[in-house]
Amino acid sequence: MTTVRYCVNGKLVSGIAPTNRGFAYGDGVFRTMRLLNGELQDWPLHYQTLVADCSKIQIVCPSAELLMQEFKYFLASASEEDTQFSIIKIIITRGEGARGYAPPAVSEPTRVLIQSPLPDYPPEMYTHGVALYTCQTRLAHQPLLAGIKHLNRLENVLARAELKDPRFFDGLLRDYDDNVIEAVSGNLFIRKDGMVRTPPLDSCGVAGVMRQKILDWYKTQGQPVVIAPLSMGDLLQADAMIIVNSVYGVLQVSHIDDQPITTNHWAKELRPQLHYVTH
Amino acid sequence: MTTVRYCVNGKLVSGIAPTNRGFAYGDGVFRTMRLLNGELQDWPLHYQTLVADCSKIQIVCPSAELLMQEFKYFLASASEEDTQFSIIKIIITRGEGARGYAPPAVSEPTRVLIQSPLPDYPPEMYTHGVALYTCQTRLAHQPLLAGIKHLNRLENVLARAELKDPRFFDGLLRDYDDNVIEAVSGNLFIRKDGMVRTPPLDSCGVAGVMRQKILDWYKTQGQPVVIAPLSMGDLLQADAMIIVNSVYGVLQVSHIDDQPITTNHWAKELRPQLHYVTH
Repeated sequence: MTTVRYCVNGKLVSGIAPTNRGFAYGDGVFRTMRLLNGELQDWPLHYQTLVADCSKIQIVCPSAELLMQEFKYFLASASEEDTQFSIIKIIITRGEGARGYAPPAVSEPTRVLIQSPLPDYPPEMYTHGVALYTCQTRLAHQPLLAGIKHLNRLENVLARAELKDPRFFDGLLRDYDDNVIEAVSGNLFIRKDGMVRTPPLDSCGVAGVMRQKILDWYKTQGQPVVIAPLSMGDLLQADAMIIVNSVYGVLQVSHIDDQPITTNHWAKELRPQLHYVTH
Repeated sequence: MTTVRYCVNGKLVSGIAPTNRGFAYGDGVFRTMRLLNGELQDWPLHYQTLVADCSKIQIVCPSAELLMQEFKYFLASASEEDTQFSIIKIIITRGEGARGYAPPAVSEPTRVLIQSPLPDYPPEMYTHGVALYTCQTRLAHQPLLAGIKHLNRLENVLARAELKDPRFFDGLLRDYDDNVIEAVSGNLFIRKDGMVRTPPLDSCGVAGVMRQKILDWYKTQGQPVVIAPLSMGDLLQADAMIIVNSVYGVLQVSHIDDQPITTNHWAKELRPQLHYVTH
């Protein structure tokens, strides 16, 4: 796949109106997932988070039936190769609006589907882990928007722009109280003395679907993940650390800046449990 | 004017690509201004703030020449009535991008011009003032983005959605430390014992062009505005209060929730000093 394709409100059109509230105010939410052999991986969980996120900003999420109908129509025009392996991003916005912040009394949410090529990840990423850079950009505390994968992502953009050195795969994001919250493009977990820990996301950060899958899996194992604040010290002294999202799956962290982190088989053992196919 | 018109990158097209970073991440800035007899009111100051805002998020603002050229082309297709009185919103985004937060190494910023009708404000608004509602939605502290009129405006959307009672013209926004910062759609000033005060915008809020004009005007009068934190108590005990933006100009505040605020001729006296034409 060389080009990016999109579908807006069930049509293969080339654009959205500049008065769409997604463009005007970032007034919407999104999720990114893998398309694998014609199936959206973890679609039920992705749809559930879209509904929950929309609800938190008072958007009525389109029905799963409508989204699936539009997705199937979109997929019908995809090449066989792209149907087997690619990335699908779903954006839901509050829809069209007049000038001004007031949400329109009646609005039909806009549905956008974007199909992109699967990134060409080097296989060593899955075997040797990845290095993270500690970003200077900090996350603000905004409990009203915390956890939601909304379209107001300037903090992530500024943080990602800090990564100039190609040795680093992603950045580490902290809040202004020096708590580590997440990676720029995913969530993080550490293991210490047999216990798995991940930061709370009630003040900032995005609660990813892969994070939820991992929380759910450990729960079924009778070993629930401890959700508690993490400091940089906790990360550096961890027995192991992983970053996770719905595109790259689970990756072991090998370095934070220039400091090596113990790497073991945590990510490798976890992937099959999550039914995550790397390639 | 009954419809909203737009111009994208100098063309009268109907849409922007869903991969535009303005849509994907709110990765851009905007300003809204009055079009009066073919002239953009306070354009030099608006352009200066566009350049400064772009710079803070590492976007290279298009030249004033290019924006003016595209504006003139856009205006050529407007009706005479719309050329005399309307609203122009200028949006600058980082441009097109691939999937992922990383800003593209090379990108041409997208320029969007939107023309909308001037709101049909009741004349009493200018003579009797307006009532404000104290929003429950609070502004997060994010010094990296404070003051910038960027496209990440979900806080304003949530705050504006609180205003259900038509008695209220706008909402009052506070931060999580109970400081009053701004109105949802404008900045605010109070007068107390002959001194004019306005809140600092170094942690949150948008620094509007009308606010800047007022700061500049008081400076030329040898009476500089005091920029210092304001509490709800300061507002309720003020001798007078105004809210300001580039669309409605300067409005006296007559009530905060159910509490009356002294109204005098402050707004009426200030308008001609700012060369602001109400209708």
